Formats: sequence, C-alpha cells, structure tokens
Amino acid sequence: MTSDRPAFVAVDWGTSSFRGWLLDATGTPLAETRGPEGMLHCADSGFAPVLAAHLGALGADTRLPVLICGMAGARQGWIEAPYLHTPTRLDALHEGAQRVETAGDVRILPGIAQTDAAAPDVMRGEETQLLGVTEPDFTGLVCIPGTHSKWIRIEAGAVASFATYMTGELFSVIARHSILKHAVLPGADSTASEAFRDGVQRARTAPARLTSSLFGLRAAQLLGLQQQADGAARLSGLLIGTEIADAMSRLGAQHPIRLIGAGALGELYAAALADAGLNTTIVDAEHASRRGLTRAAIHLWGAHFS
Amino acid sequence: MTSDRPAFVAVDWGTSSFRGWLLDATGTPLAETRGPEGMLHCADSGFAPVLAAHLGALGADTRLPVLICGMAGARQGWIEAPYLHTPTRLDALHEGAQRVETAGDVRILPGIAQTDAAAPDVMRGEETQLLGVTEPDFTGLVCIPGTHSKWIRIEAGAVASFATYMTGELFSVIARHSILKHAVLPGADSTASEAFRDGVQRARTAPARLTSSLFGLRAAQLLGLQQQADGAARLSGLLIGTEIADAMSRLGAQHPIRLIGAGALGELYAAALADAGLNTTIVDAEHASRRGLTRAAIHLWGAHFS
Repeated sequence: MTSDRPAFVAVDWGTSSFRGWLLDATGTPLAETRGPEGMLHCADSGFAPVLAAHLGALGADTRLPVLICGMAGARQGWIEAPYLHTPTRLDALHEGAQRVETAGDVRILPGIAQTDAAAPDVMRGEETQLLGVTEPDFTGLVCIPGTHSKWIRIEAGAVASFATYMTGELFSVIARHSILKHAVLPGADSTASEAFRDGVQRARTAPARLTSSLFGLRAAQLLGLQQQADGAARLSGLLIGTEIADAMSRLGAQHPIRLIGAGALGELYAAALADAGLNTTIVDAEHASRRGLTRAAIHLWGAHFS
Repeated sequence: MTSDRPAFVAVDWGTSSFRGWLLDATGTPLAETRGPEGMLHCADSGFAPVLAAHLGALGADTRLPVLICGMAGARQGWIEAPYLHTPTRLDALHEGAQRVETAGDVRILPGIAQTDAAAPDVMRGEETQLLGVTEPDFTGLVCIPGTHSKWIRIEAGAVASFATYMTGELFSVIARHSILKHAVLPGADSTASEAFRDGVQRARTAPARLTSSLFGLRAAQLLGLQQQADGAARLSGLLIGTEIADAMSRLGAQHPIRLIGAGALGELYAAALADAGLNTTIVDAEHASRRGLTRAAIHLWGAHFS
C-alpha cells in the first residue's frame, strides 16, 4: 500500500450534517469537507448532487469508491441499507453495504437493530464508530454520549446488546419548553462542576426518581436551597446520572469502557463515570467514524487499493 | 347553622384559572363562578378587580368573608402566604392564613414546603384539597394526578412527606417537542387501554429505564413491533408507571389511598394502581377544594356563621 495516494472517499451522512474525507489506503485523511446537507435536507434536493458537490470540494477522482455510513441508509434516506440484527459481528458490517444506483461505486453501510420486544432499539452511524474503536476480539462497553446517547455491550467483536437514552434531547426540551426554563439558564457552564456531580450522584442513588427530581430542582430554588446559576449543571447531572445508573445495571459494569466523544460532553461523561468508579478511554467521534469506514473499505476494496 | 343561607365565599385561585363558590355554613354550594384569570393574568391586571367581578357574578354580599387557596398566595401572587413546613397538621392550615389589605375580610391559605435538601418540594392549593379529603385522624396516601402529580403521605392528620412528579408536563413537552412527536399522535384515546397498561407495567418493572424506554417507543414503531396509534397511550403508561413505582418505594404502599381527580385521568391512575395491587378511592378535585376551604373557614369564622 502506498500512503499519500487517494484510495477512497469516506462519508458520515447524518440527519442534519454531511462530513466527507478523502483517504489513502491506510485511512489517513488527505482532504476533508463538511456541510449542513444532512438527510433531512437531501429528502428535498436529492442525494446525488450533494455528494457530487462534496467530491468536487475534496478534489476526488470520480473513479474512486465511496463508502457512506449514517442516515443516508435509512428508509427515508438515499437507498435503504436494511438493519443487521443483534448479535452481529462488527467486522461483518461491510457485508450489509448497499450499492447505490448512481455514477461510480457508491455504497452505504447498514445500521443495527435490536428486535427485542422488551428493549427495541436502532442505530445508524454509531455501528461504524464502534468498528472504528474496537479490535476484532474486543470485549467491553462503548458509550456514545449525545442527543440520543448509546451504550453498547460488545463481546468478542460482536454487538451483543445496546440501549439508547434520550439524554441530550430531554435536556434541550425540558430546559426550553417546561417550567424548568425558569430554573435553567441558557448557555450554562459545561464543566464537571460540583452541581453537576451532585446531580449525577442523586440520580445514581435513586435513578427511578428522575421525574420527581426535575420538579425538585425548581422547588429547591424557590426555597433558597439551590442557585439558579447551577440549574443547567444539575439538570445535566440528573439526566446523565440516570443514564449511567440504568446502563450499568442493564449492560453490566464491564471493563474496558471506551467513550466516543472528545470535547466538553465527553469530559462530563468521563467525570461522571469516574465518580462511579469506572475508568474510560476517550476517543474522538470523527476519528472513530473515519477509522470504521476505513476498516470496512479495506474489506470491500482493499485488494484494489494500489 | 342555617342551611341555604350564604356564609362565605371560597376561591381556588390557580396559576391559570379562577374558581369561586358561594357556600352556606355547611359548605353546600349556592352559586359558582369560574374564569381564566389565574395568577399569571392577575400579575398584570391586579387581583382585587378580578375578585370583585367574580363576587358580583356570585351575587355575594360584599360583607361575606372570602377564603382563597392556591397560587394567589405565592410570592408572585396577591400577597404571600408563607409556606408551612412538613410535618404539619392539616387542621392547622387556617392558622397560616394571611389577611389581604383590601375591602372586606379576605384571607389566603398557605402552601406547604418540604425543606429537605434531599427532596425539596412545594405545594400550593393541594394542601387544601388534602384537608378536604382526610379526616382529622387519617393515616394513608393521597395521590393528586396532573401536570405536576403529587403523592402525599399523611400520618394522623399531618402531612408527613410528599413528592411531586412532572408527569403531565413531561407528557406534553415530549409529545410536542421531541423526536417522539412522530410516534405520538395528538388527541389519542385516554382510556386504560392494553398499550397504556403495558407501558405502566414496563415502567414498574424497570423504573430507572424511562429515558431509554422513551427512545424504545420510537424504535419499536420503526421496527414494526408497535403501532403509532398506541404511541400516546404507551407514553402515558411509561410516565405514570415510573411515577407510581417511585412513589410506592418512597412513601410506602400504605393503605388507604385516596385519589383526587375524577374523569379520564383519575380513571387511568385508578387502573394503573389496581394493576399494581393497590385499591383507591376516587374523589372529585373541586369537591376536595371546596370541602377543604369549608373546613378551614369554619375554623376561622364558624362562630360567626349564622
């Protein structure tokens, strides 16, 4: 394999964003492009023109293969790449890739579904990050914080089970649309403050109490027991603590734990997990996506990379 | 005491509503009036003119005493009637009534606060309903379903402790502002359907799982495991089941249980509690308010009722 020479294009095509990289045969990025043309945007404008524009921005030879992960493969996306079902090996993801009827060799990786009536769940995009942060024989947990946080139990390189928590989205709708808008100031500090850690601790102690602790946040301020300036950190702590408590009891506090998501949110989770006695390794999310796309691309086309 | 003769005026003055009754000395209503002039409205227009207009609508002699409960006694209300603190006897509520500097004898009953750093909580208006549905030596639980559901443990006629759950408000903001708006149809059936009971059962089995079960509701529909038509009932079941599970573990599944709130919501709670093996007595909320106001009024002015 020759480095520095473009081998393929990797794309993480989400609900509301497009991120693309021109990569060499080892997965080293040579150029990158990004934009707001996510699945929702493309439902109107079409997917092919958006991809063509970004390939142009990358200066990519149109004969290079393109591998896509994320919502472009949803039923309401470009073409549907049907879900694989748990348990499923991560190094078999590429076998579920769907080829798009368009110019060149463009394929979309599948998501993973948990078709379990007691715990139905789906992911699209995160499976590729999982492939990027785990070795073929990895056993442990992966946490992907965000709007819809995901916890995944991986056994010997296969996704055994997973759970999604609406943590980030609940923070947003509660802070903006509920009575707590008076108790949670916008643009609050996102460091692991004492108020955040106290919220996490309360939630871990009584994780079934969330819908009452939320009202308690408002009541505590009315009674002068807590400060409005701490409201956002406490709300964040309550939601993240509830998530961690349930994930641990459900998936088992199995080491190692890999945490996908550098930046402020990753730091908050790392601090919350450390307080729970759990050590994590933090991995950058885009790095994870690129690495997963590269591993799948090598399976699909590696023999032809030159 | 003479019946059929007006003795006093009782008012339940909430955040967004006004309800008033002309009552005889036994608490039997002779006339009633209601309107949307809650505390939020009166913060601009003033409270005295609103009361005067409703007294006119009742045809009440302006010399009759007026007893008010609810948000009119909040800090941002007409005058503040400072909270009593748990534990507090319900038949001592009238001792905390504040007299308003206005024409006639107008008094506002206090709310109750739980100034406990581990479980801070407040109520205003519900304490009067509690007085209305419990005998002086009552021991047991009272549940008041609603936007902010309340569970109260009463020991020998005193409020020992209580907890508020943001159940109704969370239903509303999640159904309207989160990704679940696609999974929850507006105007859904409010009977205790199988989907509702299944949601309650899931939540009672794993009450710490709420923020994940919410995403599961969407995932189950994507995977064809559940119907969109059942989404609202399931969401309602998950939230109410979580509330019941925590309230029971916190306050003790102590009998008897009085449920304040006739109508569809009361029926839903009664069904959910029955499935949990708990029998309830349902009491109408307005009846409870009127009866509580009457008991307090008899303490305050009963000797002068003629």
